[in-house]
Amino acid sequence: MKTHILFTHSPLFPTPAQLDSRETGAVAEFWGIVREAEGALTLQGLHYEAYIPMAEKLLSRLLHEIAQIHPCHCVEFAHRLGWVPVGEASLWIRVQSRHRAQAFAFMAESITRLKTDVPVWKMIQRPL
Amino acid sequence: MKTHILFTHSPLFPTPAQLDSRETGAVAEFWGIVREAEGALTLQGLHYEAYIPMAEKLLSRLLHEIAQIHPCHCVEFAHRLGWVPVGEASLWIRVQSRHRAQAFAFMAESITRLKTDVPVWKMIQRPL
Repeated sequence: MKTHILFTHSPLFPTPAQLDSRETGAVAEFWGIVREAEGALTLQGLHYEAYIPMAEKLLSRLLHEIAQIHPCHCVEFAHRLGWVPVGEASLWIRVQSRHRAQAFAFMAESITRLKTDVPVWKMIQRPL
Repeated sequence: MKTHILFTHSPLFPTPAQLDSRETGAVAEFWGIVREAEGALTLQGLHYEAYIPMAEKLLSRLLHEIAQIHPCHCVEFAHRLGWVPVGEASLWIRVQSRHRAQAFAFMAESITRLKTDVPVWKMIQRPL
């Protein structure tokens, strides 16, 4: 499985999909967008920070773990850091697989694991 | 929920996502791609036909049914008809929802229902 992982302080502008195999039957993409309402709060945006070397290492490891269960040809993963205004994307994932069930399962599991296992933090205000 | 349904004989080139709400937290997209191998056969492509008025009507109905269970703000749906070469997309879906679980469930269920309930047929050769 090919993986491409990016942590960036820039807005996320993915390139068009390049199919990795003539056996790719499913391409799934996910955008995680900052919402205005977080519980009772009305937000202007969220601030993200990561310890990048550790985040890249752990993320790469968990993507390969998930691929043992839900095989995919290719996964591209981008996380924005710094201040992300409401309505803009903090997370983007694209998965290519033979069948759609693998792509959907991979994507759902990778986001869940990202939130529990990878050192990325979010704050509801810009840091001082 | 806003819906946009398109059956077209042209290649699928979706427009960039326009967020429908400041409460959209998840945008999920799916591309169904024609694969080279179909069982023991090696394909050059697939030919799709639909009875468009009926397909649009049934698809609209089932999208709204699914939204009762997995609420989404907006769903865009495009199906290519005619000859689709290997490596090109026959199906594209984009769903916007508050949380990612709704978008993933909506997308998986809508594709399953499309294949069973909507009059779209595929053939492994161009018709004579």
